[in-house]
Amino acid sequence: MAEFSEAELTDAVLERLAGTPDPRLRQVMSALVRHLHAFIREIEPSEAEWFQGIEFLTATGQKCDDKRQEFILLSDTLGVSMLVDAINHRKPSGATPSTVMGPFYVKNAPELPMGADIASMDVGPKARVSGKVTDAAGRPIAGAVLDVWQGDSTGKYDVQYAGLDGMRLRGRFRTGNDGRYDFVTSLPVSYPVPTDGPVGKMLTATGRHPMRPGHVHFIIGAPGYETLVTHIFPTGAEYLDSDAVFAVKHSLVTKFVPRAAGTNGPDYSASYDFSLEPSAQARQAAE
Amino acid sequence: MAEFSEAELTDAVLERLAGTPDPRLRQVMSALVRHLHAFIREIEPSEAEWFQGIEFLTATGQKCDDKRQEFILLSDTLGVSMLVDAINHRKPSGATPSTVMGPFYVKNAPELPMGADIASMDVGPKARVSGKVTDAAGRPIAGAVLDVWQGDSTGKYDVQYAGLDGMRLRGRFRTGNDGRYDFVTSLPVSYPVPTDGPVGKMLTATGRHPMRPGHVHFIIGAPGYETLVTHIFPTGAEYLDSDAVFAVKHSLVTKFVPRAAGTNGPDYSASYDFSLEPSAQARQAAE
Repeated sequence: MAEFSEAELTDAVLERLAGTPDPRLRQVMSALVRHLHAFIREIEPSEAEWFQGIEFLTATGQKCDDKRQEFILLSDTLGVSMLVDAINHRKPSGATPSTVMGPFYVKNAPELPMGADIASMDVGPKARVSGKVTDAAGRPIAGAVLDVWQGDSTGKYDVQYAGLDGMRLRGRFRTGNDGRYDFVTSLPVSYPVPTDGPVGKMLTATGRHPMRPGHVHFIIGAPGYETLVTHIFPTGAEYLDSDAVFAVKHSLVTKFVPRAAGTNGPDYSASYDFSLEPSAQARQAAE
Repeated sequence: MAEFSEAELTDAVLERLAGTPDPRLRQVMSALVRHLHAFIREIEPSEAEWFQGIEFLTATGQKCDDKRQEFILLSDTLGVSMLVDAINHRKPSGATPSTVMGPFYVKNAPELPMGADIASMDVGPKARVSGKVTDAAGRPIAGAVLDVWQGDSTGKYDVQYAGLDGMRLRGRFRTGNDGRYDFVTSLPVSYPVPTDGPVGKMLTATGRHPMRPGHVHFIIGAPGYETLVTHIFPTGAEYLDSDAVFAVKHSLVTKFVPRAAGTNGPDYSASYDFSLEPSAQARQAAE
């Protein structure tokens, strides 16, 4: 018969995990149990507090659906997503830095021609965003796909509108031999992460604001290169110093320049060049 | 503008939590971030592994409903529930020890007369369970309510049968002046914790069996005493040395004695006396 004292319990659980066939899973589960038990031993929760924790996690899972990922939002607001990002992108090489994906990405945005306006249904100021996708040496990458998404001029993503069918402010652009891209979107505005769920309650209870500085989301992929998940932020955007998800990086901030008086075209224009790292496979092949 | 390096991120999140108005919440959230980040720094998850974690937590939340609490099951199988139990019941006083509540408790079981058979719909061997509820000095406690629940002779709880309305193998019993209780139930059998959800997958992946030794659940409450959440286990039950939720305690194991040949009544009988601790309020009033 096996009875475990308070002191023995952690070792008892670790021993039970020792037979995990997959060595990586054994390592992850053992570390999880050690850190989780250390957390419990430090805070010594009452049974009511433990149950509050159970209820918070349950509500977080139940807030998720095909358009909302509350556990990603929790990971984002606790700095975990950016920590995982930092761990996975340690080798600075002049490549454009990555940042969080956030909870609003939707697959299969329409592929559009260069210059297309993804914000035609929106009413606010427009911005032309253009530049190049290159390798570390500045050579243009042909056939790179830029998957772009953004909130509208009121700070909301299409998926946040109940009953809205179809996509808005989303598009995919494929570079030609010059590596250039070019599209029109809304001028990014700051907005709150969704606050109607458990994460919103956590932010309120901890006295934190839910705001993010305005930004345009990108996933950029090309054969032979690491896929880049990133944003660009307008210079001077509000909340650049207190992003609710800790995702700002200096080199992702770029000027959105107002249109010169007497000229035509979008209200603002921004130019940003993305530099991609070779994929691990491509690096190995080159060695 | 605030950009945080891998090394700076944890402190940046802690600083953001420093304004939490409630001091206990500030302590809990800060400890959570330190331990969670330490876990991430130790295992260095790939982005795919991080997303597997997000998906596991989401599925765990989504498996919960009014009859199923998968996060409690996760807490149980990772030894967290018994650790919280140990932390909250440190003062040994001769009182009966507590153990996990498990995921199958249902409120408002019918109040029944002493001697009632809560297993009348079940087909397996029966057991009479009886004894006293007393204080530490062995004095009977009148008006104690024993809330009893149990799996049936196939190892399933009523809530695990799809479409079964009404309760089975549940009842509440209220002691009189002699502190005695007495009811008939099924002979407890070992059974698996639910394995059709994320926790079941985790047990399989870590090479662990899902079995619990047979037991009868009790919540025992009386005015002026700490409410006791516990089980009794039959002596010799299978899995007493490897309970999937680490919940066995020596002093909760008791003999279920077969009926003597030629006598009447249930197939087995077990006698167990519960001893309750005074509530914190009652202890303060006595000082």
